[in-house]
Amino acid sequence: MKNFGLDIWSDDNFIIKGDTVKINHANQPSLLQITQEIREKGYKGPLLLRFPHLIQKQISTLFSTFEEAKKEFGYRGNFHAVFPLKVNQFPNFIHALIDVSQHYDYGLEAGSKAELIIAITKTPLGAPITVNGFKDKEMISLCFIAAKMGHNITVTIEGLGELETIIEVNEEFNKDSDIPVSPKIGARIRLHSSGIGIWAKSGGYTSKFGLTSTELLEAYGMLKQHKLLDRLWMIHFHIGSQMGDIAPLKKALREAGNIYAELKRRGADSLTAINIGGGLAVEYSQHGSSIERNYSLREFANDVVYLMQEIAKRKGVEEPDIFTESGRYIAASHSVLIAPVLELFSQEYHKKALRLKEKNPPLVQELHDLFNTINRKNAREYLHDALDHMESLLTLFDLGYIDLEDRSNTEILVNLIIKKAISLLRNEGSGELKKLQDRIQERYLVNFSLFQSLPDFWGLAQQFPVMPLDRLDTTPTNPASIWDITCDSDGEIGFNRELPLYLHDIDVSKEEYFLAFFLTGAYQEVLGMQHNLFTHPTECVINFNQDGSYSIDDLIEAQNLMDVLDDLDYDTGIIDKALKYQIEESNLISQEEKRELLGKLYLYLSENSYLKTIQAQNEQGQAK
Amino acid sequence: MKNFGLDIWSDDNFIIKGDTVKINHANQPSLLQITQEIREKGYKGPLLLRFPHLIQKQISTLFSTFEEAKKEFGYRGNFHAVFPLKVNQFPNFIHALIDVSQHYDYGLEAGSKAELIIAITKTPLGAPITVNGFKDKEMISLCFIAAKMGHNITVTIEGLGELETIIEVNEEFNKDSDIPVSPKIGARIRLHSSGIGIWAKSGGYTSKFGLTSTELLEAYGMLKQHKLLDRLWMIHFHIGSQMGDIAPLKKALREAGNIYAELKRRGADSLTAINIGGGLAVEYSQHGSSIERNYSLREFANDVVYLMQEIAKRKGVEEPDIFTESGRYIAASHSVLIAPVLELFSQEYHKKALRLKEKNPPLVQELHDLFNTINRKNAREYLHDALDHMESLLTLFDLGYIDLEDRSNTEILVNLIIKKAISLLRNEGSGELKKLQDRIQERYLVNFSLFQSLPDFWGLAQQFPVMPLDRLDTTPTNPASIWDITCDSDGEIGFNRELPLYLHDIDVSKEEYFLAFFLTGAYQEVLGMQHNLFTHPTECVINFNQDGSYSIDDLIEAQNLMDVLDDLDYDTGIIDKALKYQIEESNLISQEEKRELLGKLYLYLSENSYLKTIQAQNEQGQAK
Repeated sequence: MKNFGLDIWSDDNFIIKGDTVKINHANQPSLLQITQEIREKGYKGPLLLRFPHLIQKQISTLFSTFEEAKKEFGYRGNFHAVFPLKVNQFPNFIHALIDVSQHYDYGLEAGSKAELIIAITKTPLGAPITVNGFKDKEMISLCFIAAKMGHNITVTIEGLGELETIIEVNEEFNKDSDIPVSPKIGARIRLHSSGIGIWAKSGGYTSKFGLTSTELLEAYGMLKQHKLLDRLWMIHFHIGSQMGDIAPLKKALREAGNIYAELKRRGADSLTAINIGGGLAVEYSQHGSSIERNYSLREFANDVVYLMQEIAKRKGVEEPDIFTESGRYIAASHSVLIAPVLELFSQEYHKKALRLKEKNPPLVQELHDLFNTINRKNAREYLHDALDHMESLLTLFDLGYIDLEDRSNTEILVNLIIKKAISLLRNEGSGELKKLQDRIQERYLVNFSLFQSLPDFWGLAQQFPVMPLDRLDTTPTNPASIWDITCDSDGEIGFNRELPLYLHDIDVSKEEYFLAFFLTGAYQEVLGMQHNLFTHPTECVINFNQDGSYSIDDLIEAQNLMDVLDDLDYDTGIIDKALKYQIEESNLISQEEKRELLGKLYLYLSENSYLKTIQAQNEQGQAK
Repeated sequence: MKNFGLDIWSDDNFIIKGDTVKINHANQPSLLQITQEIREKGYKGPLLLRFPHLIQKQISTLFSTFEEAKKEFGYRGNFHAVFPLKVNQFPNFIHALIDVSQHYDYGLEAGSKAELIIAITKTPLGAPITVNGFKDKEMISLCFIAAKMGHNITVTIEGLGELETIIEVNEEFNKDSDIPVSPKIGARIRLHSSGIGIWAKSGGYTSKFGLTSTELLEAYGMLKQHKLLDRLWMIHFHIGSQMGDIAPLKKALREAGNIYAELKRRGADSLTAINIGGGLAVEYSQHGSSIERNYSLREFANDVVYLMQEIAKRKGVEEPDIFTESGRYIAASHSVLIAPVLELFSQEYHKKALRLKEKNPPLVQELHDLFNTINRKNAREYLHDALDHMESLLTLFDLGYIDLEDRSNTEILVNLIIKKAISLLRNEGSGELKKLQDRIQERYLVNFSLFQSLPDFWGLAQQFPVMPLDRLDTTPTNPASIWDITCDSDGEIGFNRELPLYLHDIDVSKEEYFLAFFLTGAYQEVLGMQHNLFTHPTECVINFNQDGSYSIDDLIEAQNLMDVLDDLDYDTGIIDKALKYQIEESNLISQEEKRELLGKLYLYLSENSYLKTIQAQNEQGQAK
């Protein structure tokens, strides 16, 4: 993992040159250079960089790959795509997405009223909007309003109750209308086959969404009866997010393709599209042993086109338009989270830290002897003795028989014996030794909140590629755990022997060391939790100019302390007054000091809740 | 589970009387009555009710139980407690907490800068403040400012780097000061023993927090050298949240007690307190088979007092003050989330839905025969035949050999056969039958977001008690799955045979049916995720008056659509203009209709993103 698995997950978006990781685009600036430039402007704490050129790359690859597949098979249906807003609703992302997708007929998918407002205001007229998920009468009314604005909008029926509401709203909106206009209608079908992977519940017969065949036939009858059958243009399925295996997709395509054909044959003449949902996986792995995806986009596109064509031919119906709602695939790569290391918590003990006494407890003395006489031949036996003695000594401490210095000597000696044993036995690698080795990892305290910035690691154990921004010309040797700054023991990416992470040995009092987490652009922002009140990090957009240089745009700073409290609905006026009052009224502070302390306090209140590196604090000290 | 496990989890806070669940306090209003009163004021969607009397109950129980334990053992140390803000920082909770704890020396614990500002402004002068977690120079400076305000504040040292910073900040703040003032100092110790349960990582030698014995000795030396040893008054440990088993606590107490005594004997004369952290568990279970806690608060308090006394006696040091930071125990019970059921998604099939043809595919015909001739004797065999035929028929559909009506008939017939078989074989309960039974649960679509309101269910599979607000005089019979309204298949509390939930059969077009989720007061709010942009539900505080009646106070409405977008940093002025422009410019709308649509649109924008029940929509329709 010398290159941190870059060849596996980076898709050529990033490259290592010299000792840094660079953006493989335009003038190839390094992430470190951009990070330092932003930090020099005074923005400290974790940083989320967005790269619109990577959004553009994903969208153009999606469209061109499907076009190629269509060409290869002579497919006559069209290809459409929308971006599902739930994956990332943040304005700096959405504005970049709309900007780079101008030349495609690319729209947005909404799954809630708030998302629908974004879709209506941000999707260019004519580009598709789809509306999925459960809807009430108001949300369906919003869809009718959007249709009347001229939007190419499709309401997906998720249940028969919703269809009843659509019929009712259609009556209300169009019965007195000179120009009756209604949204297009899609129907989510419930598949028998289901996806694979941690997000698999989306598919299958017990899934949360979709109509059974029986319900679909009933829906067909209702649409026909209320003269809305000509609005039914799409059937929709989704077999689950981050689909690692292509096999379930093929089953689902066969199932959906036949449902499409059967509805056509039944008389659904306006039905012309199959929406295959999302699910296109992203390769998050840094290790060859844990590849998440067993197919390429081309294979995916070929399978879709080929199977749809085959079914259409066999059933004698026209080839359907293909509609996709891939979100993770479009958004994941566009952002990188960069966070400085604050401190290293070492499990390193030196012999000189020993506080041996004239007369030590017998077991401590024995540990000392074991340490002095351990060799290749007796290493395993001595190691076992040491671990056994440690248990005994810790129990003796708990029972009051030995003192704190004895306990400290125990810690140090056992640690030294373990390290010596590992070194002596390094050619005999056993499970036990590996386990012990894991215990002596280095802990890197990193200035970010895992709950805020990588929620899927907490909830789903999703891995994200991580690497340092520099020193990449030297091999890192510290087995590393990453700690976040929350007061939660879950805020840790523990060292995992199966997927080991090694980082460099650094002295944070002398130098800065940044870690970058990649592929954080999908879901991680909106799922971000404000544990300990850590909020969305400072973000900005990195645009590339014609001459290949970059510019740092649309910077949005992480909320300062007062804004955080304001958002929680605290009355910040009262908080401000209380702080001032407590300083003014204190009889522990001189008048002069009061002014100084108030100044400091207001400086802190104007900053965000994240911590500062020693370097950043020193800079600030010098600037004062 | 006729009473939904009320006897297990409710701690007599709620009781069933007649057909509703009531608050067991004052005039005992029902939750339904309160809910309806709030909804009649126009606040729809999910609702979070806070009950300050339950916060008061927990605080007074905590203090009185420890006082009783102290009395029983003749313990001479004091008892102190703080509330850890990370468990709930919301102002309506914190203000109620401060209000009801006036008569106790009860303070706040902070784990980040933003929390520290809350602690400084909300904790009464003199009541304890503790500051845990990783800190930078600014955060430590804030602690010094608080001390200079006169606050009784303790900084917990989490690592030696932090102690260096404390020494540095002490120099800066006090070297020119007429009245040198610094915060008190605590030291987090790293225990060898560790907790049990899903949150157990907090404890143990590889845990994220705390000083080893070797580091502790070094810290002692540093404090002494810089004349700060007189500020060291507390050692601190925390063995993990929601500690189900008491055994690890006892081990940890022995360990910490001896560390305390050894430091005293070494010369830490100001050391007078042991902070045992949090971990006091809450009983979330609705089922006797899944009890989470094996001890009472009294046992917990007795163990702490007894063990501290024993160690102090043996080592000849004074009995330490006992300091606790229980948060879950204080906050969990104070809030109830109430959400209406929007729709039932039934797996109920009627024979009359069959669309049998003159000539059916042979396997469909056979299913029909199986259904007509199934009896007690052949039930198991016929059931297996039916499941086998279903697989074959679904494959035939995927391969284009049968049509949609055949597929629908398959669904219906197999469902009917399963139900008949279950009924015929009900006395022979087998795993297979139970699994099939689970498949025919009822799905209750509930107007809430699991990600926003029960994040620990998503992240940690933490169960929360749930029950309907009324109909409690009739036994519910529908095995139930709960769906939330997000577009995420994880937004589901699936029917669990081990912990079954049964709900009533209802007709949502005629009546409202509310579910209450209990014990949501700890962590769930701040960890709430804005998936699909669903935000914190409407909340209010239920206070009880002297006459036993209640009042609905401090209502904070869920954010409306525009505020949600504003918080995401969208320019809502532009969004507003875009919406207006699109209506104005549309040539699909008559002038008159434009005004009407704009009116509707602004009404929707002024409301929150949650859905409305059919009843709520009808009311609104009538009101117009």
